[in-house]
Amino acid sequence: MARAVHSMIRVLDEARSCTFYETAFGLTVADRLDFDSFTLIYLSNAESGFELELTVNKGRDTPYDLGDGYGHLAVSVADVDAEHARLTAAGLGPRKLVDFRNGDTLVARFFFIADPDGYQIEVIQRGGRFA
Amino acid sequence: MARAVHSMIRVLDEARSCTFYETAFGLTVADRLDFDSFTLIYLSNAESGFELELTVNKGRDTPYDLGDGYGHLAVSVADVDAEHARLTAAGLGPRKLVDFRNGDTLVARFFFIADPDGYQIEVIQRGGRFA
Repeated sequence: MARAVHSMIRVLDEARSCTFYETAFGLTVADRLDFDSFTLIYLSNAESGFELELTVNKGRDTPYDLGDGYGHLAVSVADVDAEHARLTAAGLGPRKLVDFRNGDTLVARFFFIADPDGYQIEVIQRGGRFA
Repeated sequence: MARAVHSMIRVLDEARSCTFYETAFGLTVADRLDFDSFTLIYLSNAESGFELELTVNKGRDTPYDLGDGYGHLAVSVADVDAEHARLTAAGLGPRKLVDFRNGDTLVARFFFIADPDGYQIEVIQRGGRFA
């Protein structure tokens, strides 16, 4: 059966993105494959076998069009309030913490944060569906 | 530490997408949350804790702009040739199988397939980086 292994996004600046993903989520470079016209960088951490793949197209300097279809990558954390405070202190500008309800039921407590290219990442309190 | 838990895409037709993801990847509805203006559907299978979240915005009937930034979700399979044949027979139109090399090194054997909204999914032979 198919197993989810990674999600790929195109980014402009390898170093800038790697710094962000390490600072924000502890994701570091597990592999890096350099080709003539592009570079692939696989980011992972000890929490999951699922990786984030960055594609850097050499010579591209205009921002990517993020469209309105793709939404976000979501990560769970053990203490979303502490992470929000840490990322605020790090100057990464997380958006406000939200208690997301469906009627009276708390679905999730989360915030969004944008990476250097503008991709949104949802940071969710770990538990239930968001293990 | 942050743990990757899902990726979210916006889709037009819930039933059409659910049928595709179940047929193609064995992903079924783990949870479904209905709100006034949108529905969230979480798809998963037994291979991974990582889920695909579909957002259906009610009343939206124009295709989403997929842009050129987001790339794809990747899944690994035990036998990529067999999966290619199965998905071809199912009429899902996978693109051709590719041996992707970096110089003399085989990086991956894979194909791409598009979901009903045009999102690309990479199907990779399981092994090495793509466990």
